[in-house]
Amino acid sequence: MLISKPKAVVLLSGGLDSATTLYVARSQGFDIYAISFRYGQRHAYELECASRVARAAGVARHVILDVNLRAFGGSALTDSARVVPRLADLGADELTQPPTYVPNRNMLLLSVAAAYAEARGVCDIFYGAQQQDRYGYWDCTPDFLERINALLALNRRQPVTVHAPFVALRKADELKLGLELGVDYAHTWTCYRGGETPCRECPSCVERAAAFREADRNDPLA
Amino acid sequence: MLISKPKAVVLLSGGLDSATTLYVARSQGFDIYAISFRYGQRHAYELECASRVARAAGVARHVILDVNLRAFGGSALTDSARVVPRLADLGADELTQPPTYVPNRNMLLLSVAAAYAEARGVCDIFYGAQQQDRYGYWDCTPDFLERINALLALNRRQPVTVHAPFVALRKADELKLGLELGVDYAHTWTCYRGGETPCRECPSCVERAAAFREADRNDPLA
Repeated sequence: MLISKPKAVVLLSGGLDSATTLYVARSQGFDIYAISFRYGQRHAYELECASRVARAAGVARHVILDVNLRAFGGSALTDSARVVPRLADLGADELTQPPTYVPNRNMLLLSVAAAYAEARGVCDIFYGAQQQDRYGYWDCTPDFLERINALLALNRRQPVTVHAPFVALRKADELKLGLELGVDYAHTWTCYRGGETPCRECPSCVERAAAFREADRNDPLA
Repeated sequence: MLISKPKAVVLLSGGLDSATTLYVARSQGFDIYAISFRYGQRHAYELECASRVARAAGVARHVILDVNLRAFGGSALTDSARVVPRLADLGADELTQPPTYVPNRNMLLLSVAAAYAEARGVCDIFYGAQQQDRYGYWDCTPDFLERINALLALNRRQPVTVHAPFVALRKADELKLGLELGVDYAHTWTCYRGGETPCRECPSCVERAAAFREADRNDPLA
């Protein structure tokens, strides 16, 4: 007799954190509905990586949705006229408000994911917010997670819960767990700039390199 | 010397509640950035009405954004194969979970509005949630308003506040206020079905008629 597994929606950007999150959800026994967003990011190459990660993990479904945030502006991630800075060049102010922050992106994408989950009768969403991201992004914090769940819990028809397994975990520890779970990080993409190879100096590249170094592993992209 | 007025983003569906909300925001001295959504609703005629309301009110800007919720399904409002029921035919269960509910629509559209507001440096959003809607929609309640504001208040860069002036007001009282403020309800659209004239029997039409009757006014669409 076939017993169908519970399903979970996973936000899959194609980066290191979301790929690892997907493998965590899978290891917990969920069938995966992966969801990615073409939101106008200059590093749209990450979507190809998302597809590769999804295939490698054998997800049940992978959808890529269009949500054009470029029209709103306000971020170096969606506006190619702005410069994605080197981490080393960020001042104290920018560390708490980085130019790569996209206005309200994460709440928006989680709202879409919750709509998608609800329409399909799925109760669980996995989100790759990462402790290290807390330096600058209000929408990657434990407080944010708690309050968005308080909001979604009001849904009388179908409460949906957002899980963020790494919201309070160091990136190096997340990486070690991902390697144990079989994530192939050659399929992931981290660089914020739109180039063909990782720039190694944007905040995202620097954090990735530091995590691999601390975990004493080699980055397959390096 | 020109002193620029503060700005507010108003969610404008083209219905009675959002039109009245827009006039309330205007009466409070805000310049209005109206935002409407083509989300796959079968009653897309309401968007023409939204444009008419926006023009009549002399808003500073009106944008119509595409967010395709039809792809998700799960609602009689976005799926023309489903029937929009008569209010009289709704059972007790359906009153707390009407078939016209769209999965997580309001949180999603408010998230987009908050992204739009933040990108433009606007701190205030007006949302036409209405007390009467509470019978079936979890996302039109005072609790929902309180919790979404608790979430948005975490934004370190620019906290945005959602105002819903009618969340605890009877529809007839809202209507009287709107008439005092000069709303021309001939420009608004309420019917959930996709017909050329109001059906007068869907829940939305019945509630509108009841409000005009109670306010002792004539509905220009009737």
